[in-house]
Amino acid sequence: MSRVRVAMVQTNSVVGDLDGNVERIRGVLDQVSGCDLAVFPEMTVAGYPLEDLVLKPGFVSDCRSAVEAVAASSGSCALVIGFPDGTPRDSSADGVQNAAAVCHDGGVVGVYHKRALPNYDVFDEARHFVPGVEPLRLYEIGGIRVGFVVCEDLWVADSPVGSLVEGGAELLVAINGSPFHRGMLAEREAVVAATAASSGVPVVYVNLVGGQDELVFDGGSMVADPAGRIVARAPRFEEAVVIVDIDIDDVPASETNLLTVRVSGPVDRTDHVVPPPIDPLDPSAELYGVLVTATRDYVTKSGFTDVCLGLSGGIDSALVAAIAADALGADHVHAVLMPSRYSSGHSIADANDLAATLGIDRRTIHIEAAHASLLALLEESLGEVPVGSTDENLQARIRGVLLMAHANASGWLVLTTGNKSESAVGYSTLYGDTAGAFAVIKDIYKLTVYELARWRNSQPGGPVISENIISKPPSAELRPDQRDDQSLPPYEVLDPLLEAYIEGDRTRADLVADGFGGEMVDRVTRLVDLAEFKRRQTPPGTRVSRKGFGRDRRLPIVNRYRG
Amino acid sequence: MSRVRVAMVQTNSVVGDLDGNVERIRGVLDQVSGCDLAVFPEMTVAGYPLEDLVLKPGFVSDCRSAVEAVAASSGSCALVIGFPDGTPRDSSADGVQNAAAVCHDGGVVGVYHKRALPNYDVFDEARHFVPGVEPLRLYEIGGIRVGFVVCEDLWVADSPVGSLVEGGAELLVAINGSPFHRGMLAEREAVVAATAASSGVPVVYVNLVGGQDELVFDGGSMVADPAGRIVARAPRFEEAVVIVDIDIDDVPASETNLLTVRVSGPVDRTDHVVPPPIDPLDPSAELYGVLVTATRDYVTKSGFTDVCLGLSGGIDSALVAAIAADALGADHVHAVLMPSRYSSGHSIADANDLAATLGIDRRTIHIEAAHASLLALLEESLGEVPVGSTDENLQARIRGVLLMAHANASGWLVLTTGNKSESAVGYSTLYGDTAGAFAVIKDIYKLTVYELARWRNSQPGGPVISENIISKPPSAELRPDQRDDQSLPPYEVLDPLLEAYIEGDRTRADLVADGFGGEMVDRVTRLVDLAEFKRRQTPPGTRVSRKGFGRDRRLPIVNRYRG
Repeated sequence: MSRVRVAMVQTNSVVGDLDGNVERIRGVLDQVSGCDLAVFPEMTVAGYPLEDLVLKPGFVSDCRSAVEAVAASSGSCALVIGFPDGTPRDSSADGVQNAAAVCHDGGVVGVYHKRALPNYDVFDEARHFVPGVEPLRLYEIGGIRVGFVVCEDLWVADSPVGSLVEGGAELLVAINGSPFHRGMLAEREAVVAATAASSGVPVVYVNLVGGQDELVFDGGSMVADPAGRIVARAPRFEEAVVIVDIDIDDVPASETNLLTVRVSGPVDRTDHVVPPPIDPLDPSAELYGVLVTATRDYVTKSGFTDVCLGLSGGIDSALVAAIAADALGADHVHAVLMPSRYSSGHSIADANDLAATLGIDRRTIHIEAAHASLLALLEESLGEVPVGSTDENLQARIRGVLLMAHANASGWLVLTTGNKSESAVGYSTLYGDTAGAFAVIKDIYKLTVYELARWRNSQPGGPVISENIISKPPSAELRPDQRDDQSLPPYEVLDPLLEAYIEGDRTRADLVADGFGGEMVDRVTRLVDLAEFKRRQTPPGTRVSRKGFGRDRRLPIVNRYRG
Repeated sequence: MSRVRVAMVQTNSVVGDLDGNVERIRGVLDQVSGCDLAVFPEMTVAGYPLEDLVLKPGFVSDCRSAVEAVAASSGSCALVIGFPDGTPRDSSADGVQNAAAVCHDGGVVGVYHKRALPNYDVFDEARHFVPGVEPLRLYEIGGIRVGFVVCEDLWVADSPVGSLVEGGAELLVAINGSPFHRGMLAEREAVVAATAASSGVPVVYVNLVGGQDELVFDGGSMVADPAGRIVARAPRFEEAVVIVDIDIDDVPASETNLLTVRVSGPVDRTDHVVPPPIDPLDPSAELYGVLVTATRDYVTKSGFTDVCLGLSGGIDSALVAAIAADALGADHVHAVLMPSRYSSGHSIADANDLAATLGIDRRTIHIEAAHASLLALLEESLGEVPVGSTDENLQARIRGVLLMAHANASGWLVLTTGNKSESAVGYSTLYGDTAGAFAVIKDIYKLTVYELARWRNSQPGGPVISENIISKPPSAELRPDQRDDQSLPPYEVLDPLLEAYIEGDRTRADLVADGFGGEMVDRVTRLVDLAEFKRRQTPPGTRVSRKGFGRDRRLPIVNRYRG
């Protein structure tokens, strides 16, 4: 039996920050110097996803220099790092590959090019890369033959894994930039375990961590043994170096048609490194962690420290305030209460209580004067005082203007607080409550907002979101006695319908066959379709589902399909 | 020699409007009944691009029914119509193809599946379709062997055209959904002519017309003879049926491995139909036509009739007002003048004159009262009166709020008036002047705005945009004596720099090597990068360049690359 020491290095690489990413890699080299192999995530030096940065020849060439800088720092521990390799031609994918460089002893000893390029959901890799076609190679590291793949390579039927194993690989290593969606960790574990079990070879799976625009890379790197058991794990959502000794059964040397690059021989070690166990997160803890990570990284990677948000006394802004305080520290969150003539006393009290409990800065601006002034201007121009949705939107937009002015004057980012149920049906005001830099809970349906609020209240330190806020009927408070359920079905009905229509790509006929009432199906799906023009102008926000609004669900705005 | 009579039918198919698109096809069947073949554009029954509608199984199945409805109406004239064919599986492209159906005498006699799927620029066909792989076929129509391809098939090196010609095709027919960008018509003509000349076979090229979200399909269908001459053309930007007799040299029947479907035999005709010549458009006329088409179709296909816009007295809003009046009729355009304390008297006069010349509705709202009211609220909250960009943005946002209230109250769409130079460097206020449904000139650099204004003034009926508006120095008028050139380089320098950075994907180092000053390059490219978060929240607008902001240029918002 042989034993190889492998470090799983989860980095929070920042898109485009080549110098910073190189420093991030160099910063762990001391920690991994006793290992045979340190495995970094997909696109380690560049960040991921790069989108059309890949089409810029100068960028790709700078990435190559960054890889060479990392390689120059490498020693006896082989490093596997991800980068875009090649030269873009004619602003197209022609020429660039999604690559893994094997670095050792001061130089690059080999490069693998990803073969399976995902081009669905949030992925556009057929736009940005061409698939690898070169003959596969193995790398003898610590005396063990290692085969490398990149992310999607592990998930496809016609995978390079089979050829690597047939060629004599004794260890498989996958570098990944795999974004979170609900249930994704279990999907990954199943694929990694099945690959190990079916090939009889251990698999090392290393994932990126951190938020990038709408995506959160949740880490959770792992090792599966040849029996398909997950025998080592890295934490979720945080940078980590996890070192693990992997035992390799001595197998008779099989014949191989794969060129094997000799990198390093076996090392005698007396100790046996076993990483500490990682407890699984319950679904609410995981989801909350995703939202905190996304918010923290969007704000800090954009160069900001502080955020502001409108606090209404409702559940959505309460949850977002709690997430922001957890992500950035209570000192960096500024709540603005902006009651109008229709705001209830309990809303103002509830919002104040929440801000006090969270320990965040708060201020109150009664918008009546601005509201009255704008109504007067509009009355003069329109010949009558605006009522109905015109007046409701007006109040929301005054709040948007005030929040943005605070952000402009103070150098803060505005967080928006709309949830997915609202965004789906357009129950929001464009340039009003949708105005801001980051939409923290845009992919969270209303019922899940409640779940997350209750989960946060159950954490050490005690409840932060009062029972008042949780139990009162949802209302936009833009006209007297307004309640969400006057315009929308109850969320217990609405959310499953929306999920079937949006995530499930069901037609109206399908939904009626699923048991939803025909009239409601017509009304709700029509609202969803009509709100496409709003969603196209709303800020990016955390994706947590298999189909978030954003890069994920790309529908035409002009669209007369009613099926 | 044989002669075949072909109708080129440019339809303005509406995305998702299956019933309407079928009616549009049926509406021309009388006109083409004397032809052997009527050629319709790509995705005739569905509209194009469909984006993720294709992932909805029910939609694709409804499209198949629409094709069958068209086929049922077909007679002796064969119809070639485009549609999505197949069944999407697992919300992915697996299973759907971009297809052309050959319909004749009441049924579908064959289907061709597009082989080359464009996946660059605005195209995402690798996301939505799988390529055709079935053996190629020829169709004997009017006694002539015809080979069919779809759009990109004509443009790629490894094209099905070669096999069709080797297989004995005597006529090639391409159905297309080819969007406009500047210079595109010449590119298309070159490809069509080269295909005909190199294969020695005439080529019929039929393109879609009309606007769909950001894209304009500009028509310009054509026929090339075997010498590579364009011998027939259809008009630009409008629906048309153009009938042309195409002479086919009798060639000795070559051996073929292609199955040939017998559709119809030769028809004896005594007349010879030659379509009227189409004069080429000069570049400004073409560009103006694109903007009018995009505006008209975005508004009307969204179910609206009227638009409003803020008229500042500057050149941008003046041009947009003229385009809107030409697109929708002056009666359907509503100008709102919203002077602030910093607006100049000449701006108000110029805006009023323009509205009067165009004959559009106009109203003036002095925003001072709302401005003062909001400043007072902000002073109380912030501890000081907002100044600088906070106050400038405030004025722009008050205008956005007022315009949106007019739109909400009156059922109008808001047109925004920002140009590409401004959008590039972020010289705009999010939720202020960027607030609206459609950004008419978002892909037009400032210098081109002037060209288009001058061109429009040269048209019959006389000038509409006064020399005052054209000759005064550009200013946002958001602080005393403000002028664009205080913040930005002159547009004569800025526009070429922006074009090189954006369309050319040049890095800072490249741009300095190109001869631009280093300090200016750093400042301008940084502005472009920082404004990405704004552009992501701005409305769709007409794409006219090879790289418009929108679906075309997909950069991360969080992006630290400074090269």
